[in-house]
Amino acid sequence: MKRINIGLIGLGTVGTGVVRLLRENDDIIRDRLGAEIVLKRVAVSDLSKGRGVDLEHEIMTADARDVITDPEIAIVVELVGGIEPARSFILEAVGEGKSVVTANKALLSTHGMEIFDKVDGAGVDIGFEASVAGGVPVIKAIKEGLPANRITSIYGIINGTANYILSKMTHDGGSFDEILRDAQEKGYAEADPTYDVDGIDAAHKLAILVNLAFGTPVGLDRIYTEGITNITPMDINFATEFGYRIKLLAIAKDRGGRIEARVHPTMIRKDDMLATVEGVYNAIHIYGNGVGPVLFYGKGAGMMPTASAVVADIIDICRNINKGISGRVPPLSCLEGKVRSVDVWDINELEIPYYIRFSAIDRPGVLSKISGVLGDHNISILSVIQKDRKVGDAVPLVIVTHHARERELVAALTEIDEMDVIKDKTVYLRIEEQIGGDS
Amino acid sequence: MKRINIGLIGLGTVGTGVVRLLRENDDIIRDRLGAEIVLKRVAVSDLSKGRGVDLEHEIMTADARDVITDPEIAIVVELVGGIEPARSFILEAVGEGKSVVTANKALLSTHGMEIFDKVDGAGVDIGFEASVAGGVPVIKAIKEGLPANRITSIYGIINGTANYILSKMTHDGGSFDEILRDAQEKGYAEADPTYDVDGIDAAHKLAILVNLAFGTPVGLDRIYTEGITNITPMDINFATEFGYRIKLLAIAKDRGGRIEARVHPTMIRKDDMLATVEGVYNAIHIYGNGVGPVLFYGKGAGMMPTASAVVADIIDICRNINKGISGRVPPLSCLEGKVRSVDVWDINELEIPYYIRFSAIDRPGVLSKISGVLGDHNISILSVIQKDRKVGDAVPLVIVTHHARERELVAALTEIDEMDVIKDKTVYLRIEEQIGGDS
Repeated sequence: MKRINIGLIGLGTVGTGVVRLLRENDDIIRDRLGAEIVLKRVAVSDLSKGRGVDLEHEIMTADARDVITDPEIAIVVELVGGIEPARSFILEAVGEGKSVVTANKALLSTHGMEIFDKVDGAGVDIGFEASVAGGVPVIKAIKEGLPANRITSIYGIINGTANYILSKMTHDGGSFDEILRDAQEKGYAEADPTYDVDGIDAAHKLAILVNLAFGTPVGLDRIYTEGITNITPMDINFATEFGYRIKLLAIAKDRGGRIEARVHPTMIRKDDMLATVEGVYNAIHIYGNGVGPVLFYGKGAGMMPTASAVVADIIDICRNINKGISGRVPPLSCLEGKVRSVDVWDINELEIPYYIRFSAIDRPGVLSKISGVLGDHNISILSVIQKDRKVGDAVPLVIVTHHARERELVAALTEIDEMDVIKDKTVYLRIEEQIGGDS
Repeated sequence: MKRINIGLIGLGTVGTGVVRLLRENDDIIRDRLGAEIVLKRVAVSDLSKGRGVDLEHEIMTADARDVITDPEIAIVVELVGGIEPARSFILEAVGEGKSVVTANKALLSTHGMEIFDKVDGAGVDIGFEASVAGGVPVIKAIKEGLPANRITSIYGIINGTANYILSKMTHDGGSFDEILRDAQEKGYAEADPTYDVDGIDAAHKLAILVNLAFGTPVGLDRIYTEGITNITPMDINFATEFGYRIKLLAIAKDRGGRIEARVHPTMIRKDDMLATVEGVYNAIHIYGNGVGPVLFYGKGAGMMPTASAVVADIIDICRNINKGISGRVPPLSCLEGKVRSVDVWDINELEIPYYIRFSAIDRPGVLSKISGVLGDHNISILSVIQKDRKVGDAVPLVIVTHHARERELVAALTEIDEMDVIKDKTVYLRIEEQIGGDS
């Protein structure tokens, strides 16, 4: 049986998972592939460190170049993460004529075009299924499952840490800070959780999805990104009262030939399928003009789910090697040269319903004042809730609007926040009434 | 730009959708594929019939052989359905060196091995994504998204008609017959609904999924198949009361190296994701030993969703033609010669919890008698509900059991149904407590 040599750079959680999965499922992978995948070299930064897997001493090296320049290695699996040296490793490996598998969303969302161009020119392949939604094969689905479709929208829960925190806040109660600490203790959140709770990780992944779905690159600076650190138990409860859930959504839509691309906490109807995605799970809802709505769901992170995606890419490339080909499917799902340049809507141009929570003095005439200003900015009110009654004190006054333009909303709230009846900065959240749909 | 000729046999709903989708998304398909797909010939049984699409007169023919034998056609799309002449058309097309795309689950679940063997030998490809779950790319996912996994279970809602009827019965009330008539009027059910409501269509699809996931063929005669025609509003209501929903599930599990393969109405927890799949939608839950649980959701039927899958297969094969290859991924996900022969569990060997509804005379001592017989057969009771009290009359007595063996259950019920306090044949339904999971 044919043997295909691969090399690994990085043996952290995912790398260890890859080694374990290749071993555990050795027999079925061979039956499916018709070749044996041989782990020829593994580069780690610290050779003295203990590992979760036993590896022969001879295949270990502290120098990534031993992997990259090994003439017998056909596929280099980069699992270092971050921009450098990961970028250089990948570019050098491609330069050496090797195909690459990576899970590195930070790198691909910032240097993707450079890397894909080099891959295209070198007659090799690149796999990056693990960069979005862990084990869920959503990249394969967009590139090869739905290529007959004009994709019009994507809604994703693609950060497990943020979803875990919001799920906990919704179902068990507690403040953001308390639950973040709990998540850190359980290993669901990193010691530095910034990328996850500020929406940056989700924006990285959304950039990749936009590229694949709309055939256009989108810079991270064009993706409006807002995290969940300011979500309060009060807003969680009001959301429930209005029949919503708050989720950190990564949203991309083709609206009139321009793209919306944004990551922010979003209110969605509680009976929507995405609203039922709890804990560290991920889900991506895609609308295509042929297929209609489809949803892909599973574990977005963790050792073995991510390894499942990495090994799927390895097998995919091995299937090409078996046939002596490369470049069967373009990295970005559309051909180089066919990559469009598309405008991105500014967040101020958004037109959706909003949830607004004022901290207003409970006094006759306040609602009239507030709704007057909203009206001046063409914002009409769908419903109002004022829960507590404490005449003369500040109480939460919650308004859900009809479709409004974000620019007008921000202007109205700036004006309202200057009123003396308003005690705290007004909070607002975006609402997505219907995920996907034929609209 | 390279042109790849295809031919269509059959221009019903799906065929019309394929033509429409190829036209509507012509530009993006070309950008993604790097070739132009040309519809060179279309065979229909009745040339005089009106169509939903305009086609040039010259490409139409009443003779399928005009498509099959056209030397310029590379891919034959069979959308005739049924066993013959579809089987002959496909075998002949493959014999002519053409690749084939089909949505024909009835054919593949009965003559799959014959067809796949011929495809393997002929150096061509076959695509059948549309045969299971319409537009949802679940076949692609199993073969290429999850090939690193040992799949241990599949739970599918893969018949939209049955799911529509059960959803309606649950949420709007009504008898099976009433709702079936309503579904027929709306076009959600065929004039002859047997295949859908008796579970046969779901069994066809399950046979294909088992083949792909477990690498083993399973005859339709080994798939226990039970439809939804006997589901009553009373059982729907009791299910709700116990916190369950009734769904027609197609279930396959690897249990101790033997396969469970069965289609039947099943009670599942109402907060399970599959329980939230309503109407004509399909969903497939797969558990892999690396990825854990994954779920794929979307429209399982209809013109454009099914066309999305057919055209995805056409593009897939065109990508192989672009590179001058075939057989990159084996039709059944594992290589010929590696296909295992695996035992299938008899339904009598099932060990799960059961819902049992007795029609028992309301009289002291009846429950004791019934539970005595159940106990004699090693069946222990989890909970009991007796709703109405009409002393001396027959009332529903509902029992949910702990795990029990089906063989014992059937024996116990046979015994109990002979008691004079039992007025009607006892009804039982299988319960799946946890979909997938690490168990």
